[in-house]
Amino acid sequence: MRFVRLGAAGAERPFVRAGDGTLHDLSGVTPDIDGAFLAGDGPAKAARALEAGELPVADGAGLRVGAPIAAPGKIVCIGMNYRRHAEETGAPVPTEPVLFMKAPDVMVGPFDEVLVPRGSTATDWEVELGVVIGKTARYLESADEALAHVAGYVVSNDVSERDFQLNRGGQWDKGKNCETFNPLGPELVTADEIPDPQALGLRTWVNGAKVQDSSTKDMVFTVAEIIHYLSQFMVLRPGDLINTGTPEGVALGQPEPKPYLRAGDVVELEIDGLGKQRQTLGQA
Amino acid sequence: MRFVRLGAAGAERPFVRAGDGTLHDLSGVTPDIDGAFLAGDGPAKAARALEAGELPVADGAGLRVGAPIAAPGKIVCIGMNYRRHAEETGAPVPTEPVLFMKAPDVMVGPFDEVLVPRGSTATDWEVELGVVIGKTARYLESADEALAHVAGYVVSNDVSERDFQLNRGGQWDKGKNCETFNPLGPELVTADEIPDPQALGLRTWVNGAKVQDSSTKDMVFTVAEIIHYLSQFMVLRPGDLINTGTPEGVALGQPEPKPYLRAGDVVELEIDGLGKQRQTLGQA
Repeated sequence: MRFVRLGAAGAERPFVRAGDGTLHDLSGVTPDIDGAFLAGDGPAKAARALEAGELPVADGAGLRVGAPIAAPGKIVCIGMNYRRHAEETGAPVPTEPVLFMKAPDVMVGPFDEVLVPRGSTATDWEVELGVVIGKTARYLESADEALAHVAGYVVSNDVSERDFQLNRGGQWDKGKNCETFNPLGPELVTADEIPDPQALGLRTWVNGAKVQDSSTKDMVFTVAEIIHYLSQFMVLRPGDLINTGTPEGVALGQPEPKPYLRAGDVVELEIDGLGKQRQTLGQA
Repeated sequence: MRFVRLGAAGAERPFVRAGDGTLHDLSGVTPDIDGAFLAGDGPAKAARALEAGELPVADGAGLRVGAPIAAPGKIVCIGMNYRRHAEETGAPVPTEPVLFMKAPDVMVGPFDEVLVPRGSTATDWEVELGVVIGKTARYLESADEALAHVAGYVVSNDVSERDFQLNRGGQWDKGKNCETFNPLGPELVTADEIPDPQALGLRTWVNGAKVQDSSTKDMVFTVAEIIHYLSQFMVLRPGDLINTGTPEGVALGQPEPKPYLRAGDVVELEIDGLGKQRQTLGQA
C-alpha cells in the first residue's frame, strides 16, 4: 500500500493510492499517517477499507504533496554507509554504523523549496532510502528480527551543508539541521511491497544531469543490520525515520570546484518503486 | 512563575507553583506546557489567572513529577561549554559552540529512574542549565536579541555513555540518546525570575558526595551567544530545549578507575533558583 499526505504544510490530510493509481481519502480511517496509525492495526484497516470500497475516491489535483508521514519522533541518520561513498570522501569504510541526528522539524514535502542557508558555501544533496518504523524496537537480539519492525520505505533527501558539518567545530549535526533540510516522499510504501530493501536502484539529478546512480546493495550495513544496531543504543518507536546513508556522487566527492547547490538549482531524486522527488533551491 | 507537570508518564497535567509554594491547577488555561502555550500569551494568561485567584489550589501529594514541558520539537546540546570541563577532558576550549542532538523521547521526569544501557561501561552525569525557547529564533542578528526568545530555565541532566559517545565510530549522538537519558525539571522557571542566567551555581552529588560544583559564569559561550549562534544553523521553535553544557566534575574527567554510574547509584543535581533532581540508576 502507498500512503500520501496532501494539503498545505502543517494541514496535510491522509490518502492512500490504490494499485491502479487511484487516490482515496483515508480521513475516515485515521486523522494522520503517524506513529499511532502505523503501530496499531492502521495499515491493515486501511487495506481492508480500500478492498471493501469504503474509501471515497479523491481528486488530489492542485494539492501540495506533503511528507507522507507526520513529524516523526526522531530522525536518525547513518553516515558513510555506501562503500563507494566512503571512498569518494576519503573516509575509511566504517566498522560499525556511524550515527547522527536530524531534528524532526527539518522535514518538508518532496516538492517543497529547499533553502540554501545564509552563509552557506557547500550545500549538498544525498539521496537515501528512508525507513519508517512501525513497531517499537529495543535491544533486538538479532538482525533477523529487524525488518518486522519496519512500516515502510520512502525517498529521503538528507540535505547537508558540508562546511557547517565538517569545518565548524565538532559534530556533523551542525550541517544537517538547517530548515527544509529533509525532503521526504512522495509516498510511504509499505514494507510488504518491497520484498528486498537491498536491491533498490537510487539516483539523483542536478539541473537534469545524473549525479548519483547506485543501488542499496552497495550499503555497508543493511537496513536490518542498522535497525538491530540502533536498537542497542536507543529505542526506535513507531513513526521514527531512519535515513540509511547516501551512495557516491555527492558534490563533496567531486573535484574542485565542487558543484555545491545554489538558489535556482533543481534537484531530482528517485528510488526504484518509491517514486521521485523534485526540489528547486531557494536562498534563506 | 514556575510551571510543573504532574501525573503518570505520558499523562501529565499542567500546574503552576505560586510564590508561596502553593500548587494551582492550570488545566483551565492550557492542556499542557508546550510550544503552543509558551509561544502565545500563555504564561501571561496563567499569571493573570493566578493573580485573579481563578486557578484552583491543587494537592500534588503522591503524584509523579514529570518533565515540566511536553516533549520538545528538538533537544539541542552544546558540548565543551565550560572552560574547566574542557580542561578535565583534555579537549581544547572550543572557538565556536560544539553542537549535538538528543531525541525528544529520551526526556523523563526529574525523579524518574535512569537506566544504565545494556553493554554500558561508562554512563556519566552532566548537570546543565536547560533553556526552553518561547519565541521562534531564526537568523538572529545579534546576541543582544537572544534572551527575548527564552521562555524559561530548567535543570537538565544530559546523561551520557562515554564509550558509546567517543569510541564507537563517529559522532557523539550515539552515547547521548539511550532511553531515559535526559531527566528534566522539576520546574520550568520563567525567564523574568532569572535576571542573569550567567550567575547560577550548579551542583551534582553521586551517592551523597558532591562531584560537580560550578557556576554558569564559567561558560565559554553565554546563553545569549548560544541562541544567536544556533539560530544561524537551525530554526529554534517554541518549546525546543537547549542543554547548554556541563561544568567540570563528570566521571570522564576523574582519574582511573573512573567512577561511572551503576545500577543502584543515586544522582542529585541542582541549580540555584531552579530546584533539585534526584535519580536512582537502574539497569536496562
